[in-house]
Amino acid sequence: MFYHTKKLQYFKPPEKPDPIYAKKIQELIGGTFGEMTVMMQYLFQGWNCRGPAKYRDMLLDIGTEEIGHIEMLATTIAHLLDKAPIKLQEDGAKDPVVGAVMGGSNPRDIITDVMAAAMNPQHAIVSGLGAMPADSVGFPWNGRFIVASGNLMADFRSNLHAESQGRLQAVRLYEMTNDPGVKDTLSFMIARDTMHQNQWLAAIEDLKAEGLEDTPVPSAFPLELEKREFAYQFWNHSEGTESAEGRWAKGPSMDGKGEFEYVKHPQPLGPEPTPPAQPEPRLYGTPQ
Amino acid sequence: MFYHTKKLQYFKPPEKPDPIYAKKIQELIGGTFGEMTVMMQYLFQGWNCRGPAKYRDMLLDIGTEEIGHIEMLATTIAHLLDKAPIKLQEDGAKDPVVGAVMGGSNPRDIITDVMAAAMNPQHAIVSGLGAMPADSVGFPWNGRFIVASGNLMADFRSNLHAESQGRLQAVRLYEMTNDPGVKDTLSFMIARDTMHQNQWLAAIEDLKAEGLEDTPVPSAFPLELEKREFAYQFWNHSEGTESAEGRWAKGPSMDGKGEFEYVKHPQPLGPEPTPPAQPEPRLYGTPQ
Amino acid sequence: MFYHTKKLQYFKPPEKPDPIYAKKIQELIGGTFGEMTVMMQYLFQGWNCRGPAKYRDMLLDIGTEEIGHIEMLATTIAHLLDKAPIKLQEDGAKDPVVGAVMGGSNPRDIITDVMAAAMNPQHAIVSGLGAMPADSVGFPWNGRFIVASGNLMADFRSNLHAESQGRLQAVRLYEMTNDPGVKDTLSFMIARDTMHQNQWLAAIEDLKAEGLEDTPVPSAFPLELEKREFAYQFWNHSEGTESAEGRWAKGPSMDGKGEFEYVKHPQPLGPEPTPPAQPEPRLYGTPQ
Amino acid sequence: MFYHTKKLQYFKPPEKPDPIYAKKIQELIGGTFGEMTVMMQYLFQGWNCRGPAKYRDMLLDIGTEEIGHIEMLATTIAHLLDKAPIKLQEDGAKDPVVGAVMGGSNPRDIITDVMAAAMNPQHAIVSGLGAMPADSVGFPWNGRFIVASGNLMADFRSNLHAESQGRLQAVRLYEMTNDPGVKDTLSFMIARDTMHQNQWLAAIEDLKAEGLEDTPVPSAFPLELEKREFAYQFWNHSEGTESAEGRWAKGPSMDGKGEFEYVKHPQPLGPEPTPPAQPEPRLYGTPQ
Amino acid sequence: MFYHTKKLQYFKPPEKPDPIYAKKIQELIGGTFGEMTVMMQYLFQGWNCRGPAKYRDMLLDIGTEEIGHIEMLATTIAHLLDKAPIKLQEDGAKDPVVGAVMGGSNPRDIITDVMAAAMNPQHAIVSGLGAMPADSVGFPWNGRFIVASGNLMADFRSNLHAESQGRLQAVRLYEMTNDPGVKDTLSFMIARDTMHQNQWLAAIEDLKAEGLEDTPVPSAFPLELEKREFAYQFWNHSEGTESAEGRWAKGPSMDGKGEFEYVKHPQPLGPEPTPPAQPEPRLYGTPQ
Amino acid sequence: MFYHTKKLQYFKPPEKPDPIYAKKIQELIGGTFGEMTVMMQYLFQGWNCRGPAKYRDMLLDIGTEEIGHIEMLATTIAHLLDKAPIKLQEDGAKDPVVGAVMGGSNPRDIITDVMAAAMNPQHAIVSGLGAMPADSVGFPWNGRFIVASGNLMADFRSNLHAESQGRLQAVRLYEMTNDPGVKDTLSFMIARDTMHQNQWLAAIEDLKAEGLEDTPVPSAFPLELEKREFAYQFWNHSEGTESAEGRWAKGPSMDGKGEFEYVKHPQPLGPEPTPPAQPEPRLYGTPQ
Ligand SMILES: [Ca+2]
Ligand SMILES: [Ca+2]
Ligand SMILES: [Ca+2]
Ligand SMILES: [Ca+2]
Ligand SMILES: [Ca+2]
Ligand SMILES: [Ca+2]
Repeated sequence: MFYHTKKLQYFKPPEKPDPIYAKKIQELIGGTFGEMTVMMQYLFQGWNCRGPAKYRDMLLDIGTEEIGHIEMLATTIAHLLDKAPIKLQEDGAKDPVVGAVMGGSNPRDIITDVMAAAMNPQHAIVSGLGAMPADSVGFPWNGRFIVASGNLMADFRSNLHAESQGRLQAVRLYEMTNDPGVKDTLSFMIARDTMHQNQWLAAIEDLKAEGLEDTPVPSAFPLELEKREFAYQFWNHSEGTESAEGRWAKGPSMDGKGEFEYVKHPQPLGPEPTPPAQPEPRLYGTPQ
Repeated sequence: MFYHTKKLQYFKPPEKPDPIYAKKIQELIGGTFGEMTVMMQYLFQGWNCRGPAKYRDMLLDIGTEEIGHIEMLATTIAHLLDKAPIKLQEDGAKDPVVGAVMGGSNPRDIITDVMAAAMNPQHAIVSGLGAMPADSVGFPWNGRFIVASGNLMADFRSNLHAESQGRLQAVRLYEMTNDPGVKDTLSFMIARDTMHQNQWLAAIEDLKAEGLEDTPVPSAFPLELEKREFAYQFWNHSEGTESAEGRWAKGPSMDGKGEFEYVKHPQPLGPEPTPPAQPEPRLYGTPQ
Repeated sequence: MFYHTKKLQYFKPPEKPDPIYAKKIQELIGGTFGEMTVMMQYLFQGWNCRGPAKYRDMLLDIGTEEIGHIEMLATTIAHLLDKAPIKLQEDGAKDPVVGAVMGGSNPRDIITDVMAAAMNPQHAIVSGLGAMPADSVGFPWNGRFIVASGNLMADFRSNLHAESQGRLQAVRLYEMTNDPGVKDTLSFMIARDTMHQNQWLAAIEDLKAEGLEDTPVPSAFPLELEKREFAYQFWNHSEGTESAEGRWAKGPSMDGKGEFEYVKHPQPLGPEPTPPAQPEPRLYGTPQ
Repeated sequence: MFYHTKKLQYFKPPEKPDPIYAKKIQELIGGTFGEMTVMMQYLFQGWNCRGPAKYRDMLLDIGTEEIGHIEMLATTIAHLLDKAPIKLQEDGAKDPVVGAVMGGSNPRDIITDVMAAAMNPQHAIVSGLGAMPADSVGFPWNGRFIVASGNLMADFRSNLHAESQGRLQAVRLYEMTNDPGVKDTLSFMIARDTMHQNQWLAAIEDLKAEGLEDTPVPSAFPLELEKREFAYQFWNHSEGTESAEGRWAKGPSMDGKGEFEYVKHPQPLGPEPTPPAQPEPRLYGTPQ
Repeated sequence: MFYHTKKLQYFKPPEKPDPIYAKKIQELIGGTFGEMTVMMQYLFQGWNCRGPAKYRDMLLDIGTEEIGHIEMLATTIAHLLDKAPIKLQEDGAKDPVVGAVMGGSNPRDIITDVMAAAMNPQHAIVSGLGAMPADSVGFPWNGRFIVASGNLMADFRSNLHAESQGRLQAVRLYEMTNDPGVKDTLSFMIARDTMHQNQWLAAIEDLKAEGLEDTPVPSAFPLELEKREFAYQFWNHSEGTESAEGRWAKGPSMDGKGEFEYVKHPQPLGPEPTPPAQPEPRLYGTPQ
Repeated sequence: MFYHTKKLQYFKPPEKPDPIYAKKIQELIGGTFGEMTVMMQYLFQGWNCRGPAKYRDMLLDIGTEEIGHIEMLATTIAHLLDKAPIKLQEDGAKDPVVGAVMGGSNPRDIITDVMAAAMNPQHAIVSGLGAMPADSVGFPWNGRFIVASGNLMADFRSNLHAESQGRLQAVRLYEMTNDPGVKDTLSFMIARDTMHQNQWLAAIEDLKAEGLEDTPVPSAFPLELEKREFAYQFWNHSEGTESAEGRWAKGPSMDGKGEFEYVKHPQPLGPEPTPPAQPEPRLYGTPQ
């Protein structure tokens, strides 16, 4: 069960409205790696967790924090959308091509019309100048963005990845604005992403130290059941061998259980497929 | 540019048809972590790569391999769907409740009818007993399943994660069949997933060794621009402190740049949000 | 079975083209509360209706009207897209940053280029200056936007809601244009939305008067099967009690069957969840 | 900012596992009217609310409660999936048609195989016997399921509708199980839905009493700007006049501002549309 | 504007309920090539048509017919869902594995339980035994299923294709039932698909005869602007030359403007791509 | 199994960056008829093909070619996004309406700001100036865009249609740029589309010549099982008879098996539908 406090985890208001930036920062709410993703991902991982209590508690703690991150961003967006230009400045040139769309000739009017033309139209029509559960092109967040597999190592690697993309995107958005308020709020969220990358790296070490999981995930699957002879080969599917120059092409494998091998001219090991001679007649496929 | 050889990378045919398993193994083609995902993810990362040539080449090599993995699974599914029961065995009991749906009373007919009832109906109606670009519940693969961000560390973490979920799902499917042919083909793919987990761990080390990227991603962002005082704190958003028992709650941070701190009773740092007193009147929102 | 008359239910042509507005008004065709939604929702409710004939007939009448609303809007959009600027005005400044994208320096060219940059690109590339079954950000209409549950009270409340959002959005779009033709057409559609809000309020009263349904929906479910002691409590999930000031926090409940109660400090009634000690080993989840 | 308590708002464990029912009850988590919908809808309405504080606080209170409802259902699903049959009972009849799919001939094996065939395969392959953010056919929850328009009357009507569909679906699921634990948990949730229907009816009255909004929504739009002559007409789009028998066809309109009128033989008011004589030649559409 | 007649275009009721078949036949309503697709496709093509009146009228005529096809199928589904088993037959074996899911040991109960397990759960929970705007796996119809490009030849080829897939699917469903009523209704729809395939072939000839369009579409684009030397080559992207045996590999091209050529060993004509040496630093991609 | 050569099939680099055009040309990668569609469609048709080897080989050859088309376009987009303006030019007028969004008054700055406002924000935030598997409005490619039915005539008609829409869209994009490099690359792709339209027309002839399939598809379905009396009628669903003027309304049918007939006043052949008198009580629908 959850409780809400009316205060925000952190917040500095934007100094000025900016409807175009409001469109862009939606990526951090409803994008593939936005706050809705990490919130839902951590909560479902926590609810589905059958492992030790410390992991479950940790997952629900951070998932609960992330709800508040959506809240901070939604508040930021409401401010950015304030005074958004929903109507054109003038009646437009009397011009058969340009029509009534945009008019006037002073730069300020043109700029305002650019904003009206390029902002997310749903911020005016649908949400009435509020945040939406969608990304920066208006595509809605959906449940396929998250994973909660029951295998904590697989999931912590997902979490590490999500916080890496998330911090990368937050940093890019930091660079895309000059507003001191927005930059301040983002600098808090970027710091939390630093923590969360560290947290998942630590959790991965913790799982290993507890002996619960290792590479390759899932490590409890008996290795002799996989075709071991292909478990450390890099197949070079092109001419040229630049790909031989990396750590993945030589030396001991990272799981300590094999040696990388570079297969320069890989050949197929299987046959040409032979479909059944005749398809099911009642499905009216094309026969041989 | 790409070339095709008619032989499969690896393949053993299923010994017997099994339309229910055909439905399930679709997850490995078109699911969030299926072969379509890794194929497209590696190819787009390669095409968009502006880093050193060895990474670009390696990404395109493995992406090209993954096209062949879809091919192997599509061939497997065509075999599993052979002789699928598209029509009911009998005319059904003359029974107003059960109706004509399923009939007969010998177990073999019942079993056949179960298969006809529970198989993916689109395997008969839409694909004519062939594979589809969809997952095990019939949801189509889509482009939001992949990421190619231009930051190779962020992306390699994604790749490591995808191969972890992928191997986990392949292993689960291995446990869900008794068919020696299917098990044999899967044991090859599971071994490749072992390689690919090792490969991405190696590539992550390689990026670090080259001095190109480190934790926190992106590491080129000046740390003084984030609020460092919150960059190593774990916030305990619940009563109880099981979450204090993990590696993430104490000791040096994994990036070596800080010390983990456990905040037992976290308090909000921001104010109550104050929306604008009056919404835009022409949008007819509810005023204060 | 359906018939078509070539005349439109109502229509005034736009006075001038406006491709940006064409993008925006797509919301009324293919948005969550657009005409495709009400059309499909009313038709499916009618086709699935097992209640008295007057409801079924009424649903199919209004659903049939709504097909014509899509037609009016599609015609409006075709006019708004006429003469849309699909090509840039000039070759652009010879400038390494701005490149060939947009050029010229007179306001009329800039405005035309803004339109070319901000209009829905699919209106040129995909539909050839015609309407599309999508909303104002280009997201396609889909079947999850509608509901037809078989319970007419639940569905009429949905209809009332859809016409409320629909009229709100139409009114917003009315405020976002200066074109007399567009405003005239919208003023007809807004009036129909007034009727339809009234219609669903009347239909809700009619259902009650017929004794077919009441609050709580579905009213035929025996109330003693729900935990009645929690059926009129408002739980205050935050500190502060502004939420106690509303009608929902005190006085007789709206269904006349209880008394609202304000629970100032709600406490969980359930236990801490205890997952199974060991997950299924063949699924390789993390054990306790 | 949010806090979590480890105890559930309410909960009785299922007495027995039931993977088929686990699939079905997913509708209440990730369906169009599931708990993810009401949670996200109320939170976004609260965060975007520019109206009086009592509404904002109330919205965030109930949104916070709904997070806990997802938690209750996720816990229920984990129990229902316990011991789910992921593998077939026997090796199958040696039968070229039935193959290895399902075998055995005793009813208990057949039943187990039915479960393995008909359960949501992602509950085994993807989530490792945990809940997913998807509905009962595996379609993921998405952001287009919710609305937060800034107009509280429009939104409260949506909320009333969502709780009506939600209670209807919960009641149907109550009838579809015999498990006393599941029934007990549902009977709590059904009672909360009773409260929430009453709550939104009360909130609608409260808005009216405050003079903030009325029918037609949005009521601040000047009525003289709509074509009033069509604002109370019911158009009979079919032969036959069963639809004349309802409250919507005669008598004073529900907003008290007009009189319903039944238009028995509605005629189009607009012209035949005349598209532009020649399409844009550079888009290569078909000319007249 | 549209009118409705209460009679169906054609209809024979199913003789018996069959909830599994109801799930399957949803493909013909809301699948990629279902009636919602052809209805919306033809109507949007008609509304957007700028070509001669005979095409526009024809498109709207057939689009209007297709609305009635959805109606026929929705009615069929309501009958098939009648008396669907929403509850299990018995309390189940007292068995810790099988649990309460399915019980009993007589075949009729097992069969009924199979139906309850395998039917589309939303047919009970969401639609109350009515049709839905979704396909046979429950995926919703969406606007990307249709095309209306403004080029009638491109679109008529789409229509021909849609009616081909549609008839193929209807025929497959015809083979998948024994119900005389369903077969009779389908035999009408299959005949209409025969007409519609003929109709689009005729319309394609008509467009050619009018001199409006030809191969390659769009034929008004000056051929000298494409690289003509590659306009009739078949590139053999694999070893082996089975693909040389078809009509597409030799002889005059179908547009009469060239000669097919078989390129046995195709070589790339372009360079290795060279990305920019340094990515934009503020986006923190990996540099060379 | 597949191989990659590092050289592109064809390529001329754009002369100048153009982020707006980069957004638009995404349609050719991830749109409904983009290269991802034809690549996946041909490969799945090839993998699922049970017909003669020449078709299977041909399908896999062309599918393999199409992978290289995505590669060409992805490379083009990376060049077009080079030096994209991710940050505003100036701090903006000190103006409460315009705010910090866009500022400056010289046309070059305004133009740069237009680009920053109207480009696809995900090209900066998500992909770091690389291509994405999405269309020109950012909607992701998905598996429902393709078809592989097992019936080659149905599928070749789909392929012909896809190449028609694809060439139409490529030609439109050719007209929407002045960049010689882009035009050159497109002129190669447009030529390949010419070949591919010819190829599918030839393959359709080939199938007929082989006696494998004919109109109506599927031709193996016994014609006497369809209601032949309705198989050549055009139903005029509107007043007015412009639709009688086309080839589809008179003369021998295209399959040579009937005569077109124009039904000027079509009448329903079916009854009014009669739903069951009482809905299932446990689903709480509205009764009659
Ligand atoms: Ca966060
Ligand atoms: Ca793989
Ligand atoms: Ca309407
Ligand atoms: Ca609830
Ligand atoms: Ca049809
Ligand atoms: Ca191509």
